[in-house]
Amino acid sequence: MRITAYTVDDVPMIQKGDDLAAVVAERTKLEDDDVVVFASTIVSKAEGRRYLLNNITPTARAEELAALNAEDPHFIQYVLDNSTKVLWKHPLLVETVLGNVCINAGIDRSNTETGYILLLPADPNASARKIRDRILELTGKRVAVIITDMNGRSFREGQIGVAVGCAGIAAIHDKRGDVDLFGHELKITIQGIVDEVAACANMIMGESNEGTPIAVIRGYAYLKDDLGISVTYRKDREDFVKQALLDKLAQMEKAPATKAKVKKAKAY
Amino acid sequence: MRITAYTVDDVPMIQKGDDLAAVVAERTKLEDDDVVVFASTIVSKAEGRRYLLNNITPTARAEELAALNAEDPHFIQYVLDNSTKVLWKHPLLVETVLGNVCINAGIDRSNTETGYILLLPADPNASARKIRDRILELTGKRVAVIITDMNGRSFREGQIGVAVGCAGIAAIHDKRGDVDLFGHELKITIQGIVDEVAACANMIMGESNEGTPIAVIRGYAYLKDDLGISVTYRKDREDFVKQALLDKLAQMEKAPATKAKVKKAKAY
Repeated sequence: MRITAYTVDDVPMIQKGDDLAAVVAERTKLEDDDVVVFASTIVSKAEGRRYLLNNITPTARAEELAALNAEDPHFIQYVLDNSTKVLWKHPLLVETVLGNVCINAGIDRSNTETGYILLLPADPNASARKIRDRILELTGKRVAVIITDMNGRSFREGQIGVAVGCAGIAAIHDKRGDVDLFGHELKITIQGIVDEVAACANMIMGESNEGTPIAVIRGYAYLKDDLGISVTYRKDREDFVKQALLDKLAQMEKAPATKAKVKKAKAY
Repeated sequence: MRITAYTVDDVPMIQKGDDLAAVVAERTKLEDDDVVVFASTIVSKAEGRRYLLNNITPTARAEELAALNAEDPHFIQYVLDNSTKVLWKHPLLVETVLGNVCINAGIDRSNTETGYILLLPADPNASARKIRDRILELTGKRVAVIITDMNGRSFREGQIGVAVGCAGIAAIHDKRGDVDLFGHELKITIQGIVDEVAACANMIMGESNEGTPIAVIRGYAYLKDDLGISVTYRKDREDFVKQALLDKLAQMEKAPATKAKVKKAKAY
């Protein structure tokens, strides 16, 4: 297999209401089955997900978590309002209303004007479908769309690109039952395809300060479905890591660690 | 930025003593600064890391963990012998002697003959350096080399390609202190570059049963150093996830969960 992947050049600073499909279509010639990858930052901006930092009243819980993380309580309140549960307090690891697990609910304060925050798209799969459909309308090309963010990982330094929404590409490729070269049944064979594609795109997009928030991957033979990214998010009961964090957090809430001890934790 | 990535075709079944640099050099024309990615499986085979499954005597601990995981105690003994600590018993998540955290110490029973197991390379960074130097010798081209495996992730379904060894490419790109488009200092800016490249390569290599264990990535402007992959592995104290798992495991060892409860855990 041979693929090419490239960043779309000269993407302007995106504003609320901008047509991201048009931004791509005007700058590159797409082909059927291309995967077009957007940094969530610009999807959020186009969808007007920018909010005034101080336009919210922090609760006592937000104040507590803000102190622990040396953060602004308003910022932390946005994080809590966009999360279903806190998995760890410092760093502030949450499960978002979207179902993904990440630090600070993926809310961005870099890459937007001082005094504002940028939320993830409200429904990133729907955003991806909408952009895909609009690309078809503008260009006649049937592409897949992925929306990415950068996430830290357990056990490993360094953030990598992951998908937070997708359309037209299967998020995971379940090969259970297939056999290896020696005829043995493969035991663990769910491949996180869409996250591999997201990592590949992020590799050339770089961090968002480099101003290259759109990439195209061509020649990749991917599975197609429209289930979106949510099939990737593990349920609590199926995730022993999430369970261990929740259990330990519950214990710590009963008997808080000393501040000195908590400070040893390193930001993810 | 524009990259191309392709799998090297017609790679033969690798045997102990095979020259992987020559396998690549004979099948594709490399260029300076290419990244050449090898599935750890074939590096292990070339280095003779194949062992008879039954050629080891399981301890009581291996028998216990084998029963819990419905695994062969001999296999589990190899896992324990190649690990420095157990982080979770079912699934069997360990920190390997190499420092990476993964299920079953990355030991493979698929992709090798029945009755054998395949260990990871003894020193994957050294393996990568050796292959890189040999490629230079054979072709005159200065490339980077990455050795990959597939790992499960916390919170997300699906395994993705990660690096277990590298040479000539910086594993992580530390951009702390840089500023974003709006002049704000970036807070979390360590990018896990080598794992993004590994994911990109794995995306086109597919699972190892597809028989495409070598990929070349061309045109990627990467940072160069020879620190290897180990800088990516978090220290215990810096990793709250690892700490939470170790703490919960210690508690469970004191008061074991019922078998029925343990069985709910899903394989990573």
